Parts: sequence; C-alpha cells; structure tokens
Amino acid sequence: MSLPRIAIDAMGGDEGVRVMIEGAALARRRHDRFKFLLVGDEERIKSALDSHPNMRGASEILHAPETVSGDEKPTQALRRARRTSMGMAIDAVKKGEAGAAVSSGNTGALMAMAKLSLRTMPGIDRPALAALLPTMGDTDLVMLDLGANTECDARNLVQFAIMGAAYSRIATSLPEPTVRLLNIGTEEIKGTESIRDAAEQLRAAQEQLAFSFGGFIEADKLSRGSADVVVTDGFSGNIALKAVEGAARFVTDLLKDAFQSSLRSKIGFLVSRPATELLKHHLDPNNHNGAVFLGLNGVVVKSHGSANAKGVANAVAVTARMLEEDLIERIKADLAESGYGGPVKNSTNTTAGKTPASAEGAGAEGA
Amino acid sequence: MSLPRIAIDAMGGDEGVRVMIEGAALARRRHDRFKFLLVGDEERIKSALDSHPNMRGASEILHAPETVSGDEKPTQALRRARRTSMGMAIDAVKKGEAGAAVSSGNTGALMAMAKLSLRTMPGIDRPALAALLPTMGDTDLVMLDLGANTECDARNLVQFAIMGAAYSRIATSLPEPTVRLLNIGTEEIKGTESIRDAAEQLRAAQEQLAFSFGGFIEADKLSRGSADVVVTDGFSGNIALKAVEGAARFVTDLLKDAFQSSLRSKIGFLVSRPATELLKHHLDPNNHNGAVFLGLNGVVVKSHGSANAKGVANAVAVTARMLEEDLIERIKADLAESGYGGPVKNSTNTTAGKTPASAEGAGAEGA
Repeated sequence: MSLPRIAIDAMGGDEGVRVMIEGAALARRRHDRFKFLLVGDEERIKSALDSHPNMRGASEILHAPETVSGDEKPTQALRRARRTSMGMAIDAVKKGEAGAAVSSGNTGALMAMAKLSLRTMPGIDRPALAALLPTMGDTDLVMLDLGANTECDARNLVQFAIMGAAYSRIATSLPEPTVRLLNIGTEEIKGTESIRDAAEQLRAAQEQLAFSFGGFIEADKLSRGSADVVVTDGFSGNIALKAVEGAARFVTDLLKDAFQSSLRSKIGFLVSRPATELLKHHLDPNNHNGAVFLGLNGVVVKSHGSANAKGVANAVAVTARMLEEDLIERIKADLAESGYGGPVKNSTNTTAGKTPASAEGAGAEGA
Repeated sequence: MSLPRIAIDAMGGDEGVRVMIEGAALARRRHDRFKFLLVGDEERIKSALDSHPNMRGASEILHAPETVSGDEKPTQALRRARRTSMGMAIDAVKKGEAGAAVSSGNTGALMAMAKLSLRTMPGIDRPALAALLPTMGDTDLVMLDLGANTECDARNLVQFAIMGAAYSRIATSLPEPTVRLLNIGTEEIKGTESIRDAAEQLRAAQEQLAFSFGGFIEADKLSRGSADVVVTDGFSGNIALKAVEGAARFVTDLLKDAFQSSLRSKIGFLVSRPATELLKHHLDPNNHNGAVFLGLNGVVVKSHGSANAKGVANAVAVTARMLEEDLIERIKADLAESGYGGPVKNSTNTTAGKTPASAEGAGAEGA
C-alpha cells in the first residue's frame, strides 16, 4: 500500500523550522516512501529545504501565516487555529489531504485543536496521550494518559486500556499485551474509586478484550517489563513520566560528577566510554520521541518540544507505523469487540446500551 | 537536654529482629545518648542483643505477643493493635514511656494505629507521610504526602505545606524553605481544582507563613534543588517517589549491563570504581531511610521494609533529630502563626474561625 503523506507542523518546537525539516529529511533517508505536507512560513521552509535535496520530490509546502507559541493558552490558540501551522496541519488530516499530523508545538493547544477538528471516535469520551517508554524487557511499554486529561473516571480508564492495547499490538507486535492500571499498591483495596472500578470492569470484560488485564502496577515497576501497557489518568501519568525523566537525568548527572571527581575516575571514564555511550543512547529521549493522541478520528503525533532532528525522525517513523497498520480502524474494531465502541465497518456489533456511542461521531463537523 | 528514649518495633521489616536491633546498636555507636524501648518477642530480642554489648545499659525490652504482618489489612491489624509490637510501640509514645516510635512494618497499619492512638494535632485534618529525598542542591528535599492520603483537598494540601516547611527547617536548617506544589505544569490554570485552590490560599497567606511559597513544580524538577519542600496528595506523591526509585534502579541496571558488555568496559569499570561507588552511596535508599508521619501528637517514623542496619540507624537518627528540635511544638506554633492551627503553649493566637481546631485534640483518647 502507498503510505499517505504526513503533515508536519514546521513551526512548533524549541528549535523551529530547521530541526523539523531536518528530522523529516532524516526520516526520508531511512524510508524513501515517506511524503510530506510541510505547514508553516513558506519562505522559511523553502530556505530550510535548500539543505535537503532528498525532500524535493517528496514534499509540498502549505503556507500558514501564524504560529502557536509555546506558552499560549489552548483556548486562545483555538480561536486562530485556522491560520496557524498547527491548526492547518490538523485540518489537512481532517480534509484527507494528509494521513496524519506531527507537531513539536504546545501540547495543550495541539490536544484542543485535534479534538475539536477531528473529534473523538465512537465509544471514546476523551482522547489520551500515549507514548512508548524503554524497559528492561524485550519490548517498549505503552503508557497513557500522559497529560491530556487531568481527571479520569473508570470509564475513561477502560477506554484508555482498549486503545493502549491496540497501540501496543502495533508498536510491539505482541499478540496479546498485558495491560495494568497504575496504582499505589497491588491489593484490591488500594487507590481511588475510579481505579478500583476500572479494574473491576476490566476483569469482568476479560473475555471480550484483545489483551490480558494484569491488575495493578506500582510506579517503581514501570521499566521492569511486567506490563506492556500501563493505564492511568493524565495527572498521575504526567507525574510518573516526568519523575522518571528527572530521575534518569539526576542519576546521569551524578555519574558525570562522579567521573569528574578524580584523575583516576576521569581515566576510567575514557576507558569505559563505549559503556557510557550505550547508556546514553538508551536514555536519549530522542530515541523514544513521538507521543500519540489515541481516540481521535485521525492520527496526531506530539513530538517533544526539545527534540532534535533524530527525535523528529523517530516521531515521523512512529506516525508512519500507525498509518501502515491502520491504528484508527484497529482501535474501532477492538472497541466494538469489547462492547465499548460504536458500530464499525463490516461489523454488526452494537454498543447495546453498555456504552452509548458518542454523539460526536466520525463524521461530525469540527470547528 | 536529655533525649527521650525511642520505641523500636523490633518485629517489623523484611529482615525482622536482627536488623532492627543491629540498626539501633549502630545508631548508638554514633550517638551514645540514644536510649531504646525494644518492643517485640522478648526471647528473640534478647538473643539479637547478645551481639551488641553497647545496647545493654541503653535499652529495655517490652514484650509483645503478636506481630503485624506485611500484607495484613490495616483494619484487621487495628483490632489487635494492643497485642502487637507495632501497636505497643505507638502506645508507649502515647503514654509518655517513649518519645517516639520507629517501625519497618506495614505502612497502612502503622498509619492507622498511629492516627487512632496519637490523634491528629489541633488544626490538622489528616496526617501526612514525609520523607527526605536527595537533590543536586546543597540540601535534601522534604516531600509529602507519600501515600497516607489517596485523595486530598486544598485545605489538606495547605496543612501539609505548613508541616513540611516546619520539618524542612529542622532537617535542613534553612530559615525559610521554599515550598512548591507538585503539578503537571507551572501555569496557574494547570492541575486539579484542589491544587489550584491550595496555591491561591498559600499565596494569600504568604505573610503569615514561615516559608516562601514558590508556586508549582513539575516532577522532572524534583531533584534540581529549586524546592525545599514539595507538597502533593498521597496518590501522586507515592507515584512520583516510586517512579524516581524505579528509574534510578533502571539507570543503574543499564549501567551495570553496559559495563559488562565488553572487556574494555569491564576494565573501565574497575578503574572508575571510586566514581561508581560514590554514585552507589548517593543512590542507596538506606542513606535516606526514615519517613515521618507529620500532624500527629507524637513522632512516628516509618523505616523502609527492606532497610538494612545502616538504614534503620538512619531512621533512628532522623527520629532523634525531631525529638531534639521538638518538631511537634514547632508545627503547632507554625500552624497557630499561620492562622491554621489551634491555640498553642505561650500563644494567644486563635484560629479565628478560619480553620476550626480539630475536635480530636491532643488529650483525646485513642483506641
């Protein structure tokens, strides 16, 4: 199948146009089937393209007169969505002019625009932000929600579990991933009512689910490999993710200090450089860049604001994988199978009152 | 001043009696003013004491016929509190037979027993679990709540801020610690309603507070040194703490793997051993052992279940510091000053309706 082109918000991110274009070009050097719609200031995009001849036949420019700034309130950004590179990239997905959108810009604005323009799919109340995290196991961990929804009820968490498992099957090729709920203990009585309710619902629905529900997991076990998908509300998920990032940086900073502490340590550092480089590679967030908004009628990927070209290329690769594997249809099918979704293509399943299909259907008009 | 003796729940913890007694003995080798009430199975304590002659004149045994198990439900443990080493250690504090209690046992049971027996101090609705965490800065960070309260309202968070600041002043000797609220962003609109309300209350009360309120902090900045106290609900706090622990272990495991990856790396490891030992020391949780229940009419310290003798000795040292500096009276005074507490010794302050003094006063009878 030919891969639909990917819309790139060329203006988002701390480093701006040059890094986004360089990232897209890098992704294309790895897979020459990638094609792009580059959205943003035409002059600056053209100038950035000069250094990347491999992008010439593979990209079209869509001029956007405005840019969403990093600290802009989502409500404010929404009002001028149609004139911004971010909003126009998402709009291209809605119109079918691109298969997916990638942005390194303001997460809150991206979420708001994507939700309003693409709408949530039938059976999903709220979209969630999911990312792949490294583990000591053989495969990466899918974790969601990472900050799209500050508070979540049991129904949201169950929907996240279904979407996260579908994403995990695509990203890791595991036939039946293990899904766990993040909690502060593994006993049934632990946690908030929402979490305990979600666990009960998942246990009860086990036979209809395309994954194995493994109960609760504590935050110190995230990287141990005992879960393929970890589900949580956006507040806790964001805190866990950032705590992990901060702690990893803390340890590597301590290590740097330690290696500087004496001549002997400095020599040791030079000798063991291949080892520390391996560690550096493993911990480089650019190697895990590309968080996905799940639950929308379209693929929207958030690249980290501080991602470098390699990071952007990885976000593009993540996006391409989801398009190739048709993530959206897979999630819809899983939702329908589980009794949580709305009707899907080639399916006579209905939600049978359990979870009424969202009024905001696939065809509903965005802002 | 002479230091009140410390009640040790000799039966809690993964390693049991021997480690608890060895930890107390180690603490006493460092500071010979420490005296202990050792609570638990008399025979086993006596046998463990044989190896520690320095404990002879410094400790008394209080026989307890039962032990709280690690996976016991708090409600179940509560029913037989009076016969367990944990319950009897806390009871000794209530009766004034010991100045403080230290336990490595079941956290939920310890919390329930301590709360019921010692009661919360005037002006505090709920006690919180606080611990000291290492940072890149000069002083440790006080973080609370770490799991005592799954859900918290704004008023709880404000009380935690006042208690955490009092603890920080004692533990770090900073005259005016900076307190921040854990959140998923630093903008005012971020987070739950409770967090935003707490921030508003802390800003409004700034002049009466014995600390500086520094707004929100994200979880990746915990160890950066920009906050002396970080306040959060017990769910998020537990997740952040465990995520940090898990990530630190993940990085050190990766480092170990990397150092094993080639002969050159192995040699590098040997050469740089002083550096990696420094790192190991810095990250050893035993060096930061001893979490404190703040807000009770008595000092109760939770030592980690897997703490070794050095860890237990550190928990004892933390406990002694709080007794020497009279943490309980300091918190009461700070609460009164801020307008949040009940009346205190030598003070004409009243709570003036703002936060009515708790009906569970210092003199109330426990279970």
